[in-house]
Order: sequence, then C-alpha cells, then structure tokens
Amino acid sequence: MRTRISADGRAYDVRRAVRADVPAIVGLIAADQIGAARDGGADLEPYERAFATIDGDPAQLLVVVTEPGGEVVATLQLTVIPGLARRGSLRGQIEAVRVRADLRGRGLGQALLTWAIDEARRRGCTLIQLTSDKRRADALRFYDRLGFTASHEGLKLRVDRADRPPTG
Amino acid sequence: MRTRISADGRAYDVRRAVRADVPAIVGLIAADQIGAARDGGADLEPYERAFATIDGDPAQLLVVVTEPGGEVVATLQLTVIPGLARRGSLRGQIEAVRVRADLRGRGLGQALLTWAIDEARRRGCTLIQLTSDKRRADALRFYDRLGFTASHEGLKLRVDRADRPPTG
Repeated sequence: MRTRISADGRAYDVRRAVRADVPAIVGLIAADQIGAARDGGADLEPYERAFATIDGDPAQLLVVVTEPGGEVVATLQLTVIPGLARRGSLRGQIEAVRVRADLRGRGLGQALLTWAIDEARRRGCTLIQLTSDKRRADALRFYDRLGFTASHEGLKLRVDRADRPPTG
Repeated sequence: MRTRISADGRAYDVRRAVRADVPAIVGLIAADQIGAARDGGADLEPYERAFATIDGDPAQLLVVVTEPGGEVVATLQLTVIPGLARRGSLRGQIEAVRVRADLRGRGLGQALLTWAIDEARRRGCTLIQLTSDKRRADALRFYDRLGFTASHEGLKLRVDRADRPPTG
C-alpha cells in the first residue's frame, strides 16, 4: 500500500510503516512539545515490541509519510473498532498524528488526514473519531476545518498496569 | 470469565457477552435518549454480524451485567489499542456504556466502570480513555468522580462508507 499525496506543491508518499521506520516515528513523537517528557531515548526495544503488536493486528494501520528522498516526515495510526451501536457500524479512530515541525501549516497534515478519512471509509467506517489535547489550539482549529465536531469530552485516566509485578 | 460486582446492596454478574445477549444489548442501546433514533427495530441481522466481528477480535471485550435472575441490565465494550507513544504502552478504550434506566444513580455504573478499569489494567493498559457526549451532564460528573480528566476534545466526523456501492 503506497499512495501519493501532495501539499504545498510537493509530492509525498503515504505507506504502511515497517519496523525500520520505528526510530523515525519515535523521533516525531519525542519532538512533540506536550509528549516530549514521555518518549525518546536510546532504548528502542519497547517501541519495537509495540510495533510488532500493531503490525500483527489487522484492525491497526500505522502509516508514515515520506519525502521524495525517503525521509519520514509524518505519521498517524488508524484503528478500526467494531461495535453494536448505529446498526453495527465500524468506527475509525485516529491516534498519534505527528507532522515534522517545519512542515506544519503547509497542508501536509490536511492531506494526510484526508487520506486517512478516505482509508477509513474504504474499510467500511461510518464514524471517524479522535481526541485532541485542549491545549493544542492550532490542532483543534485544524480538525474543525476538516469537518470534525467537538461534540464530546475526551476523558483520560492514567493507571498502573496490573499484569506484572511493579519494577524497581 | 464471570465476576461478581455489587451495587446498592445487590449482587450482579459481569461476563463476556454471547450471541444470545445481542437483543438485550440492542435494547439498552435503543433505550438511550440521544441514540434512540439510530438503533432498535426488528432486524437483528446487522447487529449479529457486528457481534461476530467483535467476538472474533481478541482486542475487543464486550461484556454484559446480569441480575441474579439472568436479565441483562448493563453493558460496555473495552478495546485494547496498541501504540508507540508512551514507550509502546497500551490504551484501554471504553465505548457503548449503557445501564438500564431504573438502575442509574445507584452505584451499578460505578461498579461496572471500576471493574472495566481493573480489567484494562490486567490486560496491560496504562491509559484508560473514553469520550462522552457534552450534553450528558450526569455522565460527565460520573466520569469525573471515577477520576477521569476532561483534558481532550472528543472530535467526531460522520462519513459514508466507501467500501460498497450506495443502496436504494
């Protein structure tokens, strides 16, 4: 799966992420202001393990956007969630949208989201959803322009995992 | 999987939903004020098809709560979503929370959500997330009491599925 998108007069490829993209994706995540303290560092092992889980789950699609030279400049993850509501319709959930800082505000994010919405529709989804941090005013305006409605609160609860004994 | 929870001095069972529960779950969905126009009616086929998809996906857990007599009185769906962010941690997403009207405000919803949060932790999740319609003031207070933070906007976009030709 490889699709051409364009923004600001330049062409980019969107393709399914492979294991070799993990460092670049982690770099985009770590470069993000709000998430900066949570990610990055030299140890890629937990990220590669997570990548294998994502890659092996047919409901997940992690993609990267590459420049003509091949460098990864943006990423997002699409999850297709089945449910009973709305006559058993599918939801397409978008997470982990990141665009390299110097390319923001130049149409690349819009082209990528438009591609992702179309891909979710191709997979049968009738509702696209995502949550965006209320502190990200630019992002909220961006999603508003794409037609998203801020009809819901995005509620989060951090917990400790209970499937293994605490470390350290 | 069957677990006992209690609320308002009464005991209930939480268990994985089976196909025979589909009519009762659809009844709870259809009884919901905001969603009323979208669901219900005699044709169970699309719901049973969706149930099969949910039931066959190990990332999904659709549960029902039953009274001692066996009647289904509440439901929710837990989805475990892998991701690269936060060092490759898992998110537990809760959707489609419904409690029979006469049992609301009596602790059953709280007992069910507490169970679901624990189940997500057992499955390795470190973040629990859900979205709740901004018009549901009671629900928002309920999730606040459970410790959820309304840090994000819950953005929704309705689309037509593109994987088949339009009908009618």
